[in-house]
Amino acid sequence: MTPETIYRAGIAGATGYTGLALVQLIQRHPRLSIGWLTSENSAGKCFNDVHAVPWAIPLIPLQDAYARARDVDVVFLCLPHGESLEAARRFAQAGVRVIDLSADFRLDTPEAYATWYGHTHADPALLARFVYGLCEINREQIRGAQLIANPGCYPSSVNLGLYPLAEAGVLGRRVVVDSKSGISGAGRSSKLLYQFVESNENLTPYNLGYRHRHIAEMELVLNGSTQAGQGEGAHRFSFNPHLLPVNQGILSTMYVSVTGGMTEQQVRQLYAERYTGEPFIHVLPAGQQATLRHVTGTNRCAISITPEDPHNPNGSDYVIVACIDNIIKGASGQALQNFNIAAGIDETAGLL
Amino acid sequence: MTPETIYRAGIAGATGYTGLALVQLIQRHPRLSIGWLTSENSAGKCFNDVHAVPWAIPLIPLQDAYARARDVDVVFLCLPHGESLEAARRFAQAGVRVIDLSADFRLDTPEAYATWYGHTHADPALLARFVYGLCEINREQIRGAQLIANPGCYPSSVNLGLYPLAEAGVLGRRVVVDSKSGISGAGRSSKLLYQFVESNENLTPYNLGYRHRHIAEMELVLNGSTQAGQGEGAHRFSFNPHLLPVNQGILSTMYVSVTGGMTEQQVRQLYAERYTGEPFIHVLPAGQQATLRHVTGTNRCAISITPEDPHNPNGSDYVIVACIDNIIKGASGQALQNFNIAAGIDETAGLL
Amino acid sequence: MTPETIYRAGIAGATGYTGLALVQLIQRHPRLSIGWLTSENSAGKCFNDVHAVPWAIPLIPLQDAYARARDVDVVFLCLPHGESLEAARRFAQAGVRVIDLSADFRLDTPEAYATWYGHTHADPALLARFVYGLCEINREQIRGAQLIANPGCYPSSVNLGLYPLAEAGVLGRRVVVDSKSGISGAGRSSKLLYQFVESNENLTPYNLGYRHRHIAEMELVLNGSTQAGQGEGAHRFSFNPHLLPVNQGILSTMYVSVTGGMTEQQVRQLYAERYTGEPFIHVLPAGQQATLRHVTGTNRCAISITPEDPHNPNGSDYVIVACIDNIIKGASGQALQNFNIAAGIDETAGLL
Amino acid sequence: MTPETIYRAGIAGATGYTGLALVQLIQRHPRLSIGWLTSENSAGKCFNDVHAVPWAIPLIPLQDAYARARDVDVVFLCLPHGESLEAARRFAQAGVRVIDLSADFRLDTPEAYATWYGHTHADPALLARFVYGLCEINREQIRGAQLIANPGCYPSSVNLGLYPLAEAGVLGRRVVVDSKSGISGAGRSSKLLYQFVESNENLTPYNLGYRHRHIAEMELVLNGSTQAGQGEGAHRFSFNPHLLPVNQGILSTMYVSVTGGMTEQQVRQLYAERYTGEPFIHVLPAGQQATLRHVTGTNRCAISITPEDPHNPNGSDYVIVACIDNIIKGASGQALQNFNIAAGIDETAGLL
Repeated sequence: MTPETIYRAGIAGATGYTGLALVQLIQRHPRLSIGWLTSENSAGKCFNDVHAVPWAIPLIPLQDAYARARDVDVVFLCLPHGESLEAARRFAQAGVRVIDLSADFRLDTPEAYATWYGHTHADPALLARFVYGLCEINREQIRGAQLIANPGCYPSSVNLGLYPLAEAGVLGRRVVVDSKSGISGAGRSSKLLYQFVESNENLTPYNLGYRHRHIAEMELVLNGSTQAGQGEGAHRFSFNPHLLPVNQGILSTMYVSVTGGMTEQQVRQLYAERYTGEPFIHVLPAGQQATLRHVTGTNRCAISITPEDPHNPNGSDYVIVACIDNIIKGASGQALQNFNIAAGIDETAGLL
Repeated sequence: MTPETIYRAGIAGATGYTGLALVQLIQRHPRLSIGWLTSENSAGKCFNDVHAVPWAIPLIPLQDAYARARDVDVVFLCLPHGESLEAARRFAQAGVRVIDLSADFRLDTPEAYATWYGHTHADPALLARFVYGLCEINREQIRGAQLIANPGCYPSSVNLGLYPLAEAGVLGRRVVVDSKSGISGAGRSSKLLYQFVESNENLTPYNLGYRHRHIAEMELVLNGSTQAGQGEGAHRFSFNPHLLPVNQGILSTMYVSVTGGMTEQQVRQLYAERYTGEPFIHVLPAGQQATLRHVTGTNRCAISITPEDPHNPNGSDYVIVACIDNIIKGASGQALQNFNIAAGIDETAGLL
Repeated sequence: MTPETIYRAGIAGATGYTGLALVQLIQRHPRLSIGWLTSENSAGKCFNDVHAVPWAIPLIPLQDAYARARDVDVVFLCLPHGESLEAARRFAQAGVRVIDLSADFRLDTPEAYATWYGHTHADPALLARFVYGLCEINREQIRGAQLIANPGCYPSSVNLGLYPLAEAGVLGRRVVVDSKSGISGAGRSSKLLYQFVESNENLTPYNLGYRHRHIAEMELVLNGSTQAGQGEGAHRFSFNPHLLPVNQGILSTMYVSVTGGMTEQQVRQLYAERYTGEPFIHVLPAGQQATLRHVTGTNRCAISITPEDPHNPNGSDYVIVACIDNIIKGASGQALQNFNIAAGIDETAGLL
Repeated sequence: MTPETIYRAGIAGATGYTGLALVQLIQRHPRLSIGWLTSENSAGKCFNDVHAVPWAIPLIPLQDAYARARDVDVVFLCLPHGESLEAARRFAQAGVRVIDLSADFRLDTPEAYATWYGHTHADPALLARFVYGLCEINREQIRGAQLIANPGCYPSSVNLGLYPLAEAGVLGRRVVVDSKSGISGAGRSSKLLYQFVESNENLTPYNLGYRHRHIAEMELVLNGSTQAGQGEGAHRFSFNPHLLPVNQGILSTMYVSVTGGMTEQQVRQLYAERYTGEPFIHVLPAGQQATLRHVTGTNRCAISITPEDPHNPNGSDYVIVACIDNIIKGASGQALQNFNIAAGIDETAGLL
């Protein structure tokens, strides 16, 4: 046995909730250590001045991190949407592996950005080099990849929850997603809406219907492309998020039809086969529902499958529930999983 | 001016959450006072030995209350489902007004009990004398009524949220209801599932699909009868409740289609007209979503109306959100509102 | 019987939590209605654009309210500390009753402001005209008063909890107060500390020890003056607040000694006599502890008395627990109670 | 390098919260795996039938585990207080290492059990063989120990928070502890008091004063013995716990005097020296307070030190705040730390 390489990670935008989670997870990771952390607002302070943790790691401005790009093997970009582009370009040029947790490189075409974000993508060539890092679905493309777009939290729950049906071609056209997310999903911001008294003992629907930006990633994965539009075989997603008074966790309740005359047993078999051996996918047995408790604090996705009519269990209407921790499997945990796959080390390292 | 009559109320099963809320609300009611309270488990104690309130009202067994039926003008039955039947019969015979908060007299036919509760109703004659007390819909039948079945909490949110569409004949066949209820909806019981650590920071779907008992009351109100079955014009309800980590409140997110080529403006007009002058119905303007905060601690129902496609606002797909406080408008508040209507006094007395 | 006068209230700074609570409580008050509401940030909007309530009351700037001072009988000032001074002066000159919920007129001397707030009071003559509105203690001075300083929330819990001991001269010198307050106590602000994810599942001590500003009001009431200093008979207060993950409520656990060789029975008797007939003071029997549940949503103060040594119940060490709802009895409810007393109407009007 | 031994653990009483936490922590532990799990109520089921986890480990009755004692290297007893005694005896006889998480072997003398638990200890000889496993204080005795009594959660926070003062002989006689514990501290029981609606938005003091059983462990560590009584040099503990509406975490606010004329700087130096190099003790710098957030989900103890009078920072009155996660450092995490020390492996294994 030879000693194993310890890789070094830089985190850009380290003081938000995804940055915090990355720092915490890396402490446990046997093959990864922290090279540098950046923060624009808290540069000059240490990480433990900002968060209730014992690690006095200096926070440097992003500009300084560019000069130290070669000090690290991988950079995790936890920057606000829109600000990753420049950073990704700089670190990509430096030859460092980049895992971007923003939405800036998730979609498949520049046009998709025009449709969903209101502006075309500013660097289509760079966009084209990114792999969409939904680990269980795109594992082969992720291996060895230099540039990885880490998926959004809401779409990860939906895509993992419905992929076996879509892949088998038996997912009905209309997909109604009723999602509930813990408040860390809004980021570490000081908006009044996310104030304790405003959110606690409350539940708030927002951005309901067909036009939520996160639908783009559902089209990408379940339609195969954001450009499938409303064509034949394309699914139409109604996505309806609710702000839930918990810190972490997403539960997506999905109302779908299964085509092709499948029995419940056959539907379950699809999921079992697709996800067999997956260390982070937990498909629950008949009669059990996925809950936040199944996933909070873990990198797991829990999925439950319920035919709507128990008197006719082979009817076509199903409720699929999929849960993830929005900060772990929905962000920082999946980012580490992407790193593990890309670097060719144990996929579960630091994530159990 | 002559002094106004003060009515007296008995509460059977007063130590649960609906009993507690009734006691609290009656303290504020200008025309109602407490005659007696019953409890089987705590008989002999006082109300303030059981709840954190300052009112030392004795708790008597139900048997003793039968002998004191004539001491009160109205009895609120807060007994477990199945136990109201005998009590309702006894108080009805005594000529007292009865408002039953259980499910024992809500459905329209004995057969409906067979379908949804697994046994035929034991006293069809008594059942036939009950009025279904959904105040805003059945107000005229409630006036002067002696026997009133107080609606269930979940169905109240759904029925108030969809009634204007159903009444106008423009509610599409398939109705998907994704409901989230605070944990007081489970009653004041000591089951492990409702323990703080089990429920807090969690979200739990349960009893999903077409067969939840509460669907019977949706059929009753929105189909006009529990016997409409799957016939033409009948709606098919998929009802999907989730246990939400808050004390009080129900939010029902309802995915429906509106038929008849109506514009969004016309849909809003339907709601405005149906509910104009209703003191407890709060239809929100375009762009605002109903939240638990709109209703917690009140007898109000807040309703918001959102076309799913903002690019095609006159499309037929809508998300209707309806919120109530499960303990107030969903139980004890509506029970008092029923009393106020039946007794011919100010409908809002004690409820503002 | 002649119809009763309906008084009219203005609320300056109506969009914070105390303003919201006042608006809600006034809806229920039989003798009070809303004249106008001010907001600097939301002037031009309506109250229901800012809060999840159905009342479309216009919000006007404070300058406009000065011109409409005579439209109202009482003004409740819910302005930030430091901003009440000018408003109080203006409304006082207009002859309107003023109930100030800030700290600007609570202390007894201009010097006390120098000591505790770092600057002398800018209008000592006006300060001298204010009555300190701790209702149960200063009721006689409040009757008919034009200018009332509404007490702070933390000190109200401490002062009501310890007054019977201090009045009888048996409260020991050292008083350790460990207080826990719901997050609405921080006001309706968007600071990061009060964000849901920061506060939820957390508990945060702050400003511990001898120098918290709220101690001034404890000295005022329990020492009889803020000027008693450390002289003989003066109590020394260690006040230690903690931010608690609930919306509303303060629980103060107070570690005191009782002098004079009193038995537990005599101590209980002191409280019973001092508070007999008080509609909002709830002294719990031996063996029961005051909890937030006793007071949340009410104008009550719950007090429990526990000798530290159950084997020696007549020892001198006691734990006194006092609870109030910081927004109701600690602010808006007590403000209405002050109005009721000052105006000579039923002290409990609108508060049960 | 040679492959490292993987030790095997049995857990008796695995379905409570401490058992659940042990199972979760052991999944991450590089040198420990699960041998068997016992449950009397759920024997025959699997662990994932009881908890929302993916591990289908069979649950066996304790009697069967006795027969499999030699299959494991260490047994963690997560049994109710009073039930560990027989199990400890059996596993001790089998030569297995025993770490008992109950109170059955924590105190130093049989008489202490009579004083605090109302009955003398049934097996004084076995009691005498147990080491009290407060890792940072008793590390040397723990090394190689076969029988370890894992400390209680409340006393661990108090003892770690005050030990440097007590060890240096500068802790004043009277110690007032105001503790707040998350509801998992009550165990996984279905008592009404711990139901969500009863605990949420509430705060409940209980068992206040001088006679709480947990004081025995404070005397043991800080007085050096439970038999010091009220003699010279012995501290007198007033311990006052409150039930806090969070899942996990204890925050103890401790009001003490420091004798010997020490400056604040000297006090801080005592803590720094005592805990230097301790991987799980986090002493906060001046101006920062320990909060639950510092410790939740970790094996850390966070401690903050505040002189009560900032105008006289070298005064003798201090507020010491100590926080731990009651389930981790207060139970299962410390149990693993004890195992690591006793087995001679890296003390932090599985705990970062």
